[in-house]
Amino acid sequence: MPVLNESSFFTEENSAEIVISRNGNAKNERLNQIMASITRHLHAAVKEIEPSQEEWMAAIQFLTSTGHTCDNWRQEYILLSDVMGVSMLVDSINSRRPSGTTENTVLGPFHLEGAPAMEFGANICLDMKGEPMVVNGRITDVAGRPLEGVKLDVWQANNEGFYDVQQKGIQPDFNLRGVFRSRTDGSYRFRGVKPRHYPIPNDGPVGQLLNKLGRNNRRPAHLHFVISAEGYQEVTTHIFVPDDPYINDDAVFGVKESLLRDFVHIDNSAKAAEYGVANPFYEVEFNVVLAEANS
Amino acid sequence: MPVLNESSFFTEENSAEIVISRNGNAKNERLNQIMASITRHLHAAVKEIEPSQEEWMAAIQFLTSTGHTCDNWRQEYILLSDVMGVSMLVDSINSRRPSGTTENTVLGPFHLEGAPAMEFGANICLDMKGEPMVVNGRITDVAGRPLEGVKLDVWQANNEGFYDVQQKGIQPDFNLRGVFRSRTDGSYRFRGVKPRHYPIPNDGPVGQLLNKLGRNNRRPAHLHFVISAEGYQEVTTHIFVPDDPYINDDAVFGVKESLLRDFVHIDNSAKAAEYGVANPFYEVEFNVVLAEANS
Repeated sequence: MPVLNESSFFTEENSAEIVISRNGNAKNERLNQIMASITRHLHAAVKEIEPSQEEWMAAIQFLTSTGHTCDNWRQEYILLSDVMGVSMLVDSINSRRPSGTTENTVLGPFHLEGAPAMEFGANICLDMKGEPMVVNGRITDVAGRPLEGVKLDVWQANNEGFYDVQQKGIQPDFNLRGVFRSRTDGSYRFRGVKPRHYPIPNDGPVGQLLNKLGRNNRRPAHLHFVISAEGYQEVTTHIFVPDDPYINDDAVFGVKESLLRDFVHIDNSAKAAEYGVANPFYEVEFNVVLAEANS
Repeated sequence: MPVLNESSFFTEENSAEIVISRNGNAKNERLNQIMASITRHLHAAVKEIEPSQEEWMAAIQFLTSTGHTCDNWRQEYILLSDVMGVSMLVDSINSRRPSGTTENTVLGPFHLEGAPAMEFGANICLDMKGEPMVVNGRITDVAGRPLEGVKLDVWQANNEGFYDVQQKGIQPDFNLRGVFRSRTDGSYRFRGVKPRHYPIPNDGPVGQLLNKLGRNNRRPAHLHFVISAEGYQEVTTHIFVPDDPYINDDAVFGVKESLLRDFVHIDNSAKAAEYGVANPFYEVEFNVVLAEANS
């Protein structure tokens, strides 16, 4: 029998090192580094869990079923990433900014390119359903100087918790979406409807997993923003309704303390007339501080 | 604004703890424990890798594509588990046995239930293709006492590296498969063909990943066994041809030092006639030591 190098064979002890050692000829150093890290942590998890063969097969079936649930209109693996906190973690890693600037949160799956450009104070709600809401704010740099012409791409679910793309033919196209620009003094304003909480899709393997884990599958009420200006870091974020029943239990972990905003109930006919909304209504203030591109 | 418990919100620092804390109402304590371990190690890997948003999306697409490649006849997630060394690690964890007993290795995807029962010395090769091989061995307990009536379920790829189920209509059904029983003295014997190395499926996302990593996608030549007897631990294993060019580079990490066996080339007409094979042929000895069920 030929002499063999025993250390090259897989054992329970050396398992991760042996697998990683095979990647010496990787065509891409970054891929090599990523796979080494994944392999090390995956093997550590398996050694800690010590799965039975049946548990291993259940994991294989869960991953397969999650893949089979994905189609052109549904991405169950992004949902899995979301409910595992991975999407928020990747967002956090990629949006570290100086203290005092506006924080990021997840983009979510419902952003659309091509929303209509709208004037200061315009109403993004095209079907007039729900409780009226006015959002006011000012965009500045870290020194408090107003920034003019900043682009605000805003979108939200309707008063029943659905985005337009989830209710094609029921809601008008581009309902509750608009692109605004800040004025010379940095101010912006738009009208919409008070948002409400809604469930993430719960009829697939990820929803079933949340159910088995006894976890909430709802997102607390929020409005979405992508705020961008040349020379500044783009901000993808939400503002949240702080007294939402799920504010401490967002299924995708998107809530940050700094993104809570009072949605103030206003009963004032004169003010309502000034804003062009029915009385009573909700008013929210969301001031934004942008970090310079290289800070 | 209501007073909120800031610690309940997700941050880059507390990410895994926050996700795990949501599972307090899990219906199954084992699932809770498994998800906690997976979450901790997954977040640690993400923090180490610091993926860009584009890299995160590439991972989502890889997982989705691996799911879409699975069908009733192909299991790309098992293949991924195999090439990541996870299948072997789970097998190792579930088959720790006393020193001196025969070691396990992975079952692989080509085992079939219902292979025909065969007599001592029978030939499992139904189409007579390839170089003849005789396998001889003795099955004992750890004290060296022969074990009678032990069931040996054996299967192998043909001389071109394909299993019967991969060549339906080309190979006879149940080609190179048989179930044997040890005799009073613990001995067993069967005839087959000298195995050769073969590639794992390389036309899907897992094959593409191995290619990008510069990894070999072949398995070294081997024979499969499942050996079972009441009162003893079942052994699922292979024996390997030690001078195979891929013996140190099995794509699924199945090789163990203790499972290498000399495939001896014999040129002896009298012995060939005794075994009922053409001359020359290969002869292999594989003695098996079973551990008691509760050892």
